[in-house]
Amino acid sequence: MRNIILDIQYDGTNYNGWQVQSCNNSNIITIQGVLMGAIYKLTGRHCEVTAAGRTDAGVHALSQIASFKTSSGLKTEIIQKALNANLPYDIRILEVIDKDMAFNPRFDAKSKVYCYLISNLAVVSPFMARYSWNIPYKLDIEAMISAVRFLIGKHDFSSFRGSGCGAKNTQKNILSISIEALDKIDFMTFSLKGNFIKISVEADSFLRHMVRNLVGTILEVGRKRWKPEDMEKILSSKDRRLAGQTAPARGLFLEKIDY
Amino acid sequence: MRNIILDIQYDGTNYNGWQVQSCNNSNIITIQGVLMGAIYKLTGRHCEVTAAGRTDAGVHALSQIASFKTSSGLKTEIIQKALNANLPYDIRILEVIDKDMAFNPRFDAKSKVYCYLISNLAVVSPFMARYSWNIPYKLDIEAMISAVRFLIGKHDFSSFRGSGCGAKNTQKNILSISIEALDKIDFMTFSLKGNFIKISVEADSFLRHMVRNLVGTILEVGRKRWKPEDMEKILSSKDRRLAGQTAPARGLFLEKIDY
Repeated sequence: MRNIILDIQYDGTNYNGWQVQSCNNSNIITIQGVLMGAIYKLTGRHCEVTAAGRTDAGVHALSQIASFKTSSGLKTEIIQKALNANLPYDIRILEVIDKDMAFNPRFDAKSKVYCYLISNLAVVSPFMARYSWNIPYKLDIEAMISAVRFLIGKHDFSSFRGSGCGAKNTQKNILSISIEALDKIDFMTFSLKGNFIKISVEADSFLRHMVRNLVGTILEVGRKRWKPEDMEKILSSKDRRLAGQTAPARGLFLEKIDY
Repeated sequence: MRNIILDIQYDGTNYNGWQVQSCNNSNIITIQGVLMGAIYKLTGRHCEVTAAGRTDAGVHALSQIASFKTSSGLKTEIIQKALNANLPYDIRILEVIDKDMAFNPRFDAKSKVYCYLISNLAVVSPFMARYSWNIPYKLDIEAMISAVRFLIGKHDFSSFRGSGCGAKNTQKNILSISIEALDKIDFMTFSLKGNFIKISVEADSFLRHMVRNLVGTILEVGRKRWKPEDMEKILSSKDRRLAGQTAPARGLFLEKIDY
């Protein structure tokens, strides 16, 4: 048997997230499901595919790491070519490598980086509509930067845990969190002018909806409804009801996984 | 009466081009048709909307200029807000201004810039699939640059005229044409590595499919099937059958119109 590792990039817009749903509704199309279909076409076997981060519906990935076990003797280049030939254009296999059988892309990940894009404009470019959350109000960036200081380090993030999250351990370690104000975003060779905010979070692992709930809460501070210090209170309350709304999935990207 | 000028940005992926089709098939959705619907909702009148460049199905626009005449007394800011509220997210009105009644966005345009993006990769990023033509073969950039020299200036571009083109005057003046090799493309705040080519063409006006037919021909030179000098022969032949294939619409952007 071999343990095949896939580096996957996807535009999550048209998918119901990573994970195959337990119900038998064939209208629910997931990245994992489409990928398992492509592997079945190639190997003739049903293989379980495990990913490092189970992204929600509409979330994108620059580099998602997943694995499956197979007895196939095909070369990794052939596996990559064949899977890409069997996958839709919004899911691409960037790389295929062999790893030892014990390697698990989820449990062996040291840290993951998620990035969230906000446009802060009256009119959003059609080229950004699928990839950002637009906030048409004035935002206080300094207050937002001040608020996220309280999040760095090891904390119980229960206040930012989405409903249906099955994690037993709610202690997560945020290694870094940054807020960057940009006056343009590059799209292909074009420059889209305006106000944009990039929020990057690196942590050892994440609870369900954690980044989106953090972003929704940070924005309440940006809109001056809450003070930066409120972030500390929300965190220590361990009460989801005190945090902000869940930011929409379309602005979220799984950027990188470190092993 | 007023002559209202619109600066429009759109992702052309889901549209059958700019122009409303003469047949009565309601499944054919065009930018012009959707825009006329939004103007009707706002003014209660059917208005003809004229654009500077009638982009084909699937072609994108960073800045398309269009106009319509109305007796509405609404402020331009209100017109912009109301149209954007009535338009889908892949079409946005960037600006609305009043112009003198004689102004015609098409006939008063001094020049237009179209840009074509090529990816030259084994695996295309999902974030570029809607916005580039992928050529998986090695391309000779120097030969391509050498070929386009023959196109600059005023020529009869009949060899690059699409079928169904109704232009009486096939003489067009190419003011500049450039070919740029890039080793990365920026997508939002991310950098997509690989080989990319950007072809930019500025001309006083264009024949139907002219840029896409030029790109298809330039690529035959890049693939070494034809020599750079063949471009001169193809141009002077005025025979469409001698030029290359029509490059796919998805790589083409109407970038800018000068008045």
